[in-house]
Amino acid sequence: AVGIRRAEVKQGIRMVILAKDNKNKLGLRVRNVNNGIFVQFVSANSAAAMGGLRFGDQILQINGQNLAGLSTDKAMKFFKNATSDRIELAVRDRPFERTITLQKNSDGNIGFVFKNGKVTHIVKDSSAARNGILTEHNLVEVDGQNVVGMKDKDIGKIFQACGRTVTVTIIPTFIFDHIMKHMASSLVKKQMDHSIPEI
Amino acid sequence: AVGIRRAEVKQGIRMVILAKDNKNKLGLRVRNVNNGIFVQFVSANSAAAMGGLRFGDQILQINGQNLAGLSTDKAMKFFKNATSDRIELAVRDRPFERTITLQKNSDGNIGFVFKNGKVTHIVKDSSAARNGILTEHNLVEVDGQNVVGMKDKDIGKIFQACGRTVTVTIIPTFIFDHIMKHMASSLVKKQMDHSIPEI
Repeated sequence: AVGIRRAEVKQGIRMVILAKDNKNKLGLRVRNVNNGIFVQFVSANSAAAMGGLRFGDQILQINGQNLAGLSTDKAMKFFKNATSDRIELAVRDRPFERTITLQKNSDGNIGFVFKNGKVTHIVKDSSAARNGILTEHNLVEVDGQNVVGMKDKDIGKIFQACGRTVTVTIIPTFIFDHIMKHMASSLVKKQMDHSIPEI
Repeated sequence: AVGIRRAEVKQGIRMVILAKDNKNKLGLRVRNVNNGIFVQFVSANSAAAMGGLRFGDQILQINGQNLAGLSTDKAMKFFKNATSDRIELAVRDRPFERTITLQKNSDGNIGFVFKNGKVTHIVKDSSAARNGILTEHNLVEVDGQNVVGMKDKDIGKIFQACGRTVTVTIIPTFIFDHIMKHMASSLVKKQMDHSIPEI
């Protein structure tokens, strides 16, 4: 299914080439977690969004500079100071995230309950139970579409609109909270890239 | 390389068929983490080891019975009460683990320091830095060989014996500690399956 391909976490390292927009912005925020630099925020319609960066991507290098061990502030400076027209990133695809593919039952349910984007309950003998959805995990994507910062009601609508087969991308809440630390929730709610990724 | 294939975390769910040994044992311990049932311990040369179960595998079903949401004790009872000769498991391959492939430099170093099996320091501009090794992570495997419970000295010997390309399998320490909770360290050190997996 298309959703599975959109959601897929790929192994290995990919190169991403970005150019800043006419306001000299990438629309990207990163954060040091466990001495790696991770994508915390991608602004809708930004250069970072167009380049395919996603929440939780690990950025290993910018223009050949290794980012491992840098503080959040120092890493952000490399992005701010980079030349506008060609920024080359080495990216590991969302290492803390993983996808689980579920099937709706005849009532359209996939078998778990979430609150504030976090899985709180798994329905006995449901598709979620059979396929290994876990509590203490946050929803990051549904069929590859970012849902971080969305209202539960709106995430529910995305699930309703999906076909019978739905791929959810989850991340341990412990890590999610680390990555999201100090992010203004208003920014995430209003400006996070929630577009459907192209494949 | 063979090590990469031995280490690979595969997507999706696999079936595993086990038979208990002549002492009616599987050589397996599991634990509830976030309402999923995870492999905590595989005994060397046991039925579980022969069947290819590995530390951190998520066991979804035993003989068609869903395990999601069961307590550790209740899940263990299903394993104890299962008929000896044919036990069918549905297993998700080590969902909390991931592999990173590194290259030794001319001195044979891959660029990180570990203590008690946990990554404590990443050397600047090393292979570990370029490829995204993280602190607050525990080593689970080296080229697919389990190293949980091994002395650092012995893990170091495995690294020395490896070829130039080495694949390490890591897990966030936060999750590792959850899975290992209440495991006697003497049991892990003396009886854990540390064999080289067949491919």
